[in-house]
Amino acid sequence: MAEKRDRAVGVGLIGFGTIGTGTAKVLTRSADIITRRLGFPLRLVRIADVETERDRGVDLSGIHFDTDAEGLIAAPEVDIVVELIGGYDVARRLTLEAIAAGKHVVTANKALLAAHGAEILGAAAKQGVEVGFEAAVAGGIPVLRALREGLAANQIRSVFGILNGTTNYILSEMERTEEAFEVVLKRAQELGYAEADPTFDVEGIDAAHKLALLASMAFGCQLDFRQIPTEGIRGLLPLDLEMAESFGYRIKLLGTAKAHPGDAVEVHVCPTMIPRASLLAKVDGAMNAVTIHGDAVGPTFYYGAGAGEMPTASAVVGDLMEIAREIVRGVSGRVAPLSYPVSELESKPLVPLSELRARCYLRFAAVDRPGVLSHLAGALGENGIGIESLIQRRVGSAGKSVPVIILTHPALEGSVRKALRQIDALPDVTAPTQLIRIDEEM
Amino acid sequence: MAEKRDRAVGVGLIGFGTIGTGTAKVLTRSADIITRRLGFPLRLVRIADVETERDRGVDLSGIHFDTDAEGLIAAPEVDIVVELIGGYDVARRLTLEAIAAGKHVVTANKALLAAHGAEILGAAAKQGVEVGFEAAVAGGIPVLRALREGLAANQIRSVFGILNGTTNYILSEMERTEEAFEVVLKRAQELGYAEADPTFDVEGIDAAHKLALLASMAFGCQLDFRQIPTEGIRGLLPLDLEMAESFGYRIKLLGTAKAHPGDAVEVHVCPTMIPRASLLAKVDGAMNAVTIHGDAVGPTFYYGAGAGEMPTASAVVGDLMEIAREIVRGVSGRVAPLSYPVSELESKPLVPLSELRARCYLRFAAVDRPGVLSHLAGALGENGIGIESLIQRRVGSAGKSVPVIILTHPALEGSVRKALRQIDALPDVTAPTQLIRIDEEM
Repeated sequence: MAEKRDRAVGVGLIGFGTIGTGTAKVLTRSADIITRRLGFPLRLVRIADVETERDRGVDLSGIHFDTDAEGLIAAPEVDIVVELIGGYDVARRLTLEAIAAGKHVVTANKALLAAHGAEILGAAAKQGVEVGFEAAVAGGIPVLRALREGLAANQIRSVFGILNGTTNYILSEMERTEEAFEVVLKRAQELGYAEADPTFDVEGIDAAHKLALLASMAFGCQLDFRQIPTEGIRGLLPLDLEMAESFGYRIKLLGTAKAHPGDAVEVHVCPTMIPRASLLAKVDGAMNAVTIHGDAVGPTFYYGAGAGEMPTASAVVGDLMEIAREIVRGVSGRVAPLSYPVSELESKPLVPLSELRARCYLRFAAVDRPGVLSHLAGALGENGIGIESLIQRRVGSAGKSVPVIILTHPALEGSVRKALRQIDALPDVTAPTQLIRIDEEM
Repeated sequence: MAEKRDRAVGVGLIGFGTIGTGTAKVLTRSADIITRRLGFPLRLVRIADVETERDRGVDLSGIHFDTDAEGLIAAPEVDIVVELIGGYDVARRLTLEAIAAGKHVVTANKALLAAHGAEILGAAAKQGVEVGFEAAVAGGIPVLRALREGLAANQIRSVFGILNGTTNYILSEMERTEEAFEVVLKRAQELGYAEADPTFDVEGIDAAHKLALLASMAFGCQLDFRQIPTEGIRGLLPLDLEMAESFGYRIKLLGTAKAHPGDAVEVHVCPTMIPRASLLAKVDGAMNAVTIHGDAVGPTFYYGAGAGEMPTASAVVGDLMEIAREIVRGVSGRVAPLSYPVSELESKPLVPLSELRARCYLRFAAVDRPGVLSHLAGALGENGIGIESLIQRRVGSAGKSVPVIILTHPALEGSVRKALRQIDALPDVTAPTQLIRIDEEM
């Protein structure tokens, strides 16, 4: 640990891309206000990036800028290393190197933390250095801080939310324009809202990374993101969004973590129908939002930009300021990074999806032939699943495949999946049935 | 300052009413989870209240409970004093006594801080002790922490929100039932949502207390709540709420603080029309919500219970945990209580309401007689105020007073007020005109 001292705290930035540029902008442009709030200066002293020529519109006077990440980590004037290169391997190596050198680390890299969080946080705890990662979940919204500190007196009942802006943008656009997923995705890519390879976003993996961190923090559990059942939004049709509206819901790609009796935890990322009247349902475009229920506080809700240069930089610099405060006081480990000491995180039983009980939206693709509906209803009935509403669209195009929509009464998902396996094997059913769980919790 | 040590941190509670009971419940029932998160126990060791007989449903074994507040403050096992008696004089005296005795203080008393904040925070800074007051603003929502720490890297552009649950409940009910203010207030009092003397709530004074703290923290300014132009909800009719809806707005009692060019600050508490599509407009019943715009993060939004036994206790114990962390590390003053050191708070110029420029909703009470509308329109026109919409209700009840609604184009409030003075002096105008500012900022 650094000793208590009066000089400025030095920041070294590895990765001078979008978020790195935003971070440099905040540190240089808002230096006065940051100094006033801290009582001492927080100074960007060094930057390392493979690309040193491009002009990022940041005043670099007095800042040592080259390609040497190792040199940056070793430099005595660097107290805190900001890792903003993204990805797994190099990011992991440099982060561990910085920790080993006794440097504090701030990162926005959720993929790194989801895959190597235990290793990184464990190494930091041993070294007595801090790892700040507010920017890794829900961008600029200080939701990790709320969970870890503001609501620290609460037993957390549930945490759920819209954790990926790209998919929320796509769903909002599909709803607005009634265009197919692929059409909207292409436009999102052209506008820079989606990556050239959109897999991480549209398959729900990015949301699962973030949910793993939120759930660990909420319940003190060890959770690898690969344990989280994850379904993306590729299978959704504009029809699903339209039907959801007619039933009083909206479909959002939700990351959900809930405490169940007996210390078990329910976690999943999937398209979910939520009440139109809920605040979460009002979240449009590329924004993020998280609902946290605590036993004392009840429901609380947090909303803001989940990505982007400046919102993410806001969270990165917020973490830098927090760590700088500890450095000048010569202390560390004020708050456990995942609410509980890393050594105390427990592996908790996960509730199998088959044991979840909910109303379900089912969209069948069935040939419009007499008797088909009775087959569908029969398979559901055999498995004890009650039907609340049934809607067949475009009746009359006999012999062609038409969508049949069914809302079920509350049912065990295991039973529903069993019925769907029977139904999807029927000759008159032309494509796998889409199941969307309905979550009435606001 | 207490020395670094391993023993439990001791809490003394002065005031064992609703919030005090909630605080004791959280500290005793969630002791295990609090200990795990902190790494050491946080123990309720002493309670003082004038009423020692009533059973509050809290296990008091091992807790010293009597009427002796001074004895509690002096007790060596008490590290942090929680002031939950409310009001001004006794609360102020005991709080200053605790600080003088080197004890940290946690309070939910916004009235106390709004009136004597500078004195109390100044004394605490001198003594090197902490004052926690998250519970004083928006109850269980950790919004002060968001402003002070999570968004610390931002220059704050604006903070505004629904800061009083009682008035939001009354407005929601007036909208739902179309009943008059007095009728709904009476029911709110019967249900315990409003006090027997509702002045503080319905006149906007409670919201002004909270806004003074938010604005000080957002802009680093010294601000006495008595400087905040404050208007309550007594003058509103169900008709206003209905008209707002027809124009695409909702009326909320909003506390607003905005940065203007040249370091000036706009602050006010008043009924305000906000877009129906905004998240703030979705906040119903006794809930609170705050929107914070930062220059880097953009808009962020926070929602939850603003009052009540357990939500407020959640914030109180959150503060206790934060202070306890500093006590065991032997440090203090990690974060300046109002974002900036108290000694650096500056008195900033306030923007006069007359210089605000906004579209306005005007409800005139005018006798339904030929020529009246032209008088109204004439007075507005003379003062350079354009009319966007004009609605006269119940046309035909000639000779009687009827409401005339006008939406203006953006206009200087000073000009609008001048026109209203002329209009309200007209013989055909039977009551003062109601003005409600429209704020389009989401």
